[in-house]
Amino acid sequence: MSIKFEVIKTCKQSGARLGRLETPHGVFETPFFMPVGTQGTVKTLSSEEAMAVSEGLILANTYHLWLQPGMDIIKAHGALRDFMKWDGALLTDSGGFQVFSLTDMRKITEEGVDFKHHKNGSSLFLSPELSIQIQEVIGADIIMSFDECPPPYADDAYMKESVERTLRWAKRGKDALRTDQALFGIVQGGLNKDLRAMSAKGLIDLGFPGYSIGGLSVGETKEEMYEITKFLDGILPFDKPRYLMGVGAPDDLIENVINGMDMFDCVLPTRIARHGTAWTTKGKVVIKNQTYEHDTSPLDDHLTGWQATESKAYVRHLFKAGELLGKRIVTMQNLMYLKHLMKEIRQAILEDRLLDFRDQMKKTTNYFKTR
Amino acid sequence: MSIKFEVIKTCKQSGARLGRLETPHGVFETPFFMPVGTQGTVKTLSSEEAMAVSEGLILANTYHLWLQPGMDIIKAHGALRDFMKWDGALLTDSGGFQVFSLTDMRKITEEGVDFKHHKNGSSLFLSPELSIQIQEVIGADIIMSFDECPPPYADDAYMKESVERTLRWAKRGKDALRTDQALFGIVQGGLNKDLRAMSAKGLIDLGFPGYSIGGLSVGETKEEMYEITKFLDGILPFDKPRYLMGVGAPDDLIENVINGMDMFDCVLPTRIARHGTAWTTKGKVVIKNQTYEHDTSPLDDHLTGWQATESKAYVRHLFKAGELLGKRIVTMQNLMYLKHLMKEIRQAILEDRLLDFRDQMKKTTNYFKTR
Repeated sequence: MSIKFEVIKTCKQSGARLGRLETPHGVFETPFFMPVGTQGTVKTLSSEEAMAVSEGLILANTYHLWLQPGMDIIKAHGALRDFMKWDGALLTDSGGFQVFSLTDMRKITEEGVDFKHHKNGSSLFLSPELSIQIQEVIGADIIMSFDECPPPYADDAYMKESVERTLRWAKRGKDALRTDQALFGIVQGGLNKDLRAMSAKGLIDLGFPGYSIGGLSVGETKEEMYEITKFLDGILPFDKPRYLMGVGAPDDLIENVINGMDMFDCVLPTRIARHGTAWTTKGKVVIKNQTYEHDTSPLDDHLTGWQATESKAYVRHLFKAGELLGKRIVTMQNLMYLKHLMKEIRQAILEDRLLDFRDQMKKTTNYFKTR
Repeated sequence: MSIKFEVIKTCKQSGARLGRLETPHGVFETPFFMPVGTQGTVKTLSSEEAMAVSEGLILANTYHLWLQPGMDIIKAHGALRDFMKWDGALLTDSGGFQVFSLTDMRKITEEGVDFKHHKNGSSLFLSPELSIQIQEVIGADIIMSFDECPPPYADDAYMKESVERTLRWAKRGKDALRTDQALFGIVQGGLNKDLRAMSAKGLIDLGFPGYSIGGLSVGETKEEMYEITKFLDGILPFDKPRYLMGVGAPDDLIENVINGMDMFDCVLPTRIARHGTAWTTKGKVVIKNQTYEHDTSPLDDHLTGWQATESKAYVRHLFKAGELLGKRIVTMQNLMYLKHLMKEIRQAILEDRLLDFRDQMKKTTNYFKTR
């Protein structure tokens, strides 16, 4: 197994975990957030910039890279880290989420999934073994079992069938693995605790170096999400990392760290950045708003990085003028903010005051307002 | 006068000039190329990146900045250099070219030009005095007289009337100047040598610290362009910088340096970059071509900068995948190439071998093929 993980400390106030994850390409303190580099770049950023605004660990999407540029081109460069010149650690998803969210005309069988290319409609097939083979070529440090990601409000009968199949797929993926990449199992089961428990226990019986939680942040309420992570905190092994997939809003990060989660990724910070919503230490800033037209104050006077020093009026101007630099500045800002937030969260765990920290953030920012 | 210029050396083989231009924000060897930062950013680049891929001198567009963000916002930051955090030297055009190329429903009077906003159609007016006032707020080191830029094939009667008016506008601009910014006069006259001579001599009589050549690279042939610059080389004062506006293709740069030109700007290298055409030391590379699909060789193995080290297959992938990073990589590449080219040109002048250099480039690159 190519990763090592240990919980260093548990927050006396909240139960949150402070851990240490060792990978072949870096050692990271948990909990951490990973920016998403879907297609060999964190959108708008160079690899050097992605390094500056992350902990040194990013996620790449198996589904997208499989289709474009394709495995032979990545292999010709060595692996994804050579293709995109990324010096840090890498994690890939299994492709399952994209198959179930981007494509239609799917046919799920025991063997795998037949589906259509999300852009050109050509016929494609993915299976647990193929997902592992693709992830071997991409060459990430941490990879994922191929899973079905059913809608959160699917009926129990279907959800049970799906969870059982995903468990069988997890075993097939594990059996297919030929490398020392760290393969995580993915817990599914929607909002049904019995199924979540069945899924988690099935994966624990198989034995993985880490456990992912899929099928959340897909349309359910925040309260429903938190209830599931809190429930799984009591089931998942203490000494293995827990990766909550697709979650990255500031309030969700804090709440789920309190619920025992260690790793996070999400496209939200980079996606909203490209539409002009900045996350700052003072809260959410919708930069296109008229109110910032003459605002010469820096985008964020508490953060480092050149993006934080640009004036709000300048960043607003770039968006108004359609200049691509604006998207990049806010992308860097949002990721730099999450890096800062996770560092503050880890410090609060260390000092047994994560609940105080959350309450303070509720008072001083607008990140919790939508709850 | 806030700039100083001297010709250090004339190429014995070609007659090209090697000079030294001193500005309040840097000393530059001529001939040089200036990237265009139309709206407070060289498109896709941060100011730090623009510095790395330029000589330290860029152009900003008066017309665009006047309309967005507008003068009060720039003034609130200090000047454009504060707004966009640009540490180098700056040059602004007069707005004339945009008024005549982007807008319609113009009405030209002795006083100035009434026209419609190129996007929202609102009524606007620019005059020689107003252009100077706007350029004072932007605060560039070198600024331009407000000029009319008629189409190159306008009839002689109209062209004469226009040249005479532009001369009167140049005097009004000079009279309106209240700062120590270096105001250049712009030679117009299309492809008519008599009118070009009249325009140049009229400006020389007024006396400017530098002379720009406008109305070229606007639809005429390369031979017609070169004939006019060669002609003006014999008329413009030896000891003042000559700025050929809107010219930046590699072959045009060399030919016009041979014709005695010192300064250049053009949107071409950055515009074609965003569509995937890279200029490299080996010639033009249309990166989206299938031929680069598996090409793991670097974009340019003779240039410095991280952009040059990215593989052609990776850059092609970014364009195929619609990733904005691709546009930035090629933008940096094209500007870095021009910076390199101008350095080679200056070295060739110093060593009295610019014609040899041109002939060598004709043999080893595809930049001259379209002639």
